[in-house]
Amino acid sequence: ALRGRGLDVHLFQRSGHVLQPFGEAVADRVEPELTAQGVTVHTATPVEALCGDDRIEAISYDGGRQPVDLAVVGVGITPNTGVVADTDIELGAGGAIATDKFGQTSRPDVYAAGDCATAHHTVTGEDTWMPLGLTANRGGRAIGSTVAGNPEPVGDIAGTAVVKAFDLECGRVGLIDDEAAREAGFEPVRKTITAESRSGYYPGGAETDVTLVADRETGRLLGGAIVGADRAAVRINTLATALNEEMGVAEVERLDLAYAPPFSPVWDPILVAAKVLRGSIQ
Amino acid sequence: ALRGRGLDVHLFQRSGHVLQPFGEAVADRVEPELTAQGVTVHTATPVEALCGDDRIEAISYDGGRQPVDLAVVGVGITPNTGVVADTDIELGAGGAIATDKFGQTSRPDVYAAGDCATAHHTVTGEDTWMPLGLTANRGGRAIGSTVAGNPEPVGDIAGTAVVKAFDLECGRVGLIDDEAAREAGFEPVRKTITAESRSGYYPGGAETDVTLVADRETGRLLGGAIVGADRAAVRINTLATALNEEMGVAEVERLDLAYAPPFSPVWDPILVAAKVLRGSIQ
Repeated sequence: ALRGRGLDVHLFQRSGHVLQPFGEAVADRVEPELTAQGVTVHTATPVEALCGDDRIEAISYDGGRQPVDLAVVGVGITPNTGVVADTDIELGAGGAIATDKFGQTSRPDVYAAGDCATAHHTVTGEDTWMPLGLTANRGGRAIGSTVAGNPEPVGDIAGTAVVKAFDLECGRVGLIDDEAAREAGFEPVRKTITAESRSGYYPGGAETDVTLVADRETGRLLGGAIVGADRAAVRINTLATALNEEMGVAEVERLDLAYAPPFSPVWDPILVAAKVLRGSIQ
Repeated sequence: ALRGRGLDVHLFQRSGHVLQPFGEAVADRVEPELTAQGVTVHTATPVEALCGDDRIEAISYDGGRQPVDLAVVGVGITPNTGVVADTDIELGAGGAIATDKFGQTSRPDVYAAGDCATAHHTVTGEDTWMPLGLTANRGGRAIGSTVAGNPEPVGDIAGTAVVKAFDLECGRVGLIDDEAAREAGFEPVRKTITAESRSGYYPGGAETDVTLVADRETGRLLGGAIVGADRAAVRINTLATALNEEMGVAEVERLDLAYAPPFSPVWDPILVAAKVLRGSIQ
């Protein structure tokens, strides 16, 4: 949006690549796209200070100083648990209010949902803290039903997220970080493939990269990421559904996914990724 | 494509609405779109004859005659089983060559795949004949693996299909026909909802209609259809995955599907449909 208004945009990123939660394969597509669209990307470059007297005039970082008119700061969030600070209600993952599968806190008559509360992770089975919009919405509705006498679980969270970077659509779901997968007791194996989004002869297709991560021992799908310019992001919902059902990579490979030249090649990019990953596990 | 070249296009359809396998809710969106794009749609109008001497000059139908320069005829297909006509190899659903889950025919050393062979239906569990491109591809690969000593099931078929009608994208999967659902032993309940494809404030969204069909007694999802102008078709893969896993509508409603304003409202249209259908079952 800022580039669209003709501004000179610099992106400073502390980590080694952009879009950290989406994994390296997505970042490897997004960074050149940002550059091509005129954004100057500074990875592995923490901002040290916002400089200026009355207003921000520059930011400083290791080895440099960048004059700016405007700074958009994204430094993460923490759960706002002030509302229970003076109570004995227990906190859990990420310092959020610990809840069970009905959103109930450690006190039977108190429920919590949304960005302040923990949730149950689809893949690890552990409590986690992932503040996302749908999770908050679902939790609110389910708890409303539960306290009105009709118990309704708030639902697990797979960490499904999608984002747009100019024309690139990015999606991620589940455990795609090797370290997180190992901590959860899995031995992650990963493959990234590039496939066309449409039949080769049909105009308008775009290269779509799919990364899948599975557990070597069981073949269970652990997570995935997708990036591409042609309807890539919503394809992540197929993987979110597969994770919810604890599907193995071999089962994903046999899914009857849609084929028609304007929308997909005979083998959907997800099926290609499952086939390649399965080949490397067996 | 014919309209794109400026031709006067008439569509004659024997059934009461177009795109019969996609159900009425999709047809109710597609027919006005076809009309708006200049196609004259004649539903419930079987063509009686192609007329002409040296070449086709007109088609005749009950109560009329339409001069034409060109006729594109779609009257369905039948499985080509000539290759086994002089053998004792058994035929099955739709007159196709009967196969088991490895593609094996009634003769142990003979396998069949593709448009001539039966397949195992994801929802009904019965043999069926649904000639679709991915099914043929999967079957060929799996049988190749099996006969090479590495048994590999050919995979079930959910009847996932997508099609483009000008700017409208249509998808269908599973059992969406009431009669077929009853024959398979289910009591179908159906809901169609209309939801925006993006957050209301984000430009480029389009009304997306989702039809879901479930079994009243068990709540199991039986099938679904989707139509809309903004990334509607590939969303059908979420339902194909849910059918493969025999998910219930309540489970579908709790899926952690992707939300970001350019791609989806907080509640994906599929989640809205699951919520509404579940409400009508309970």
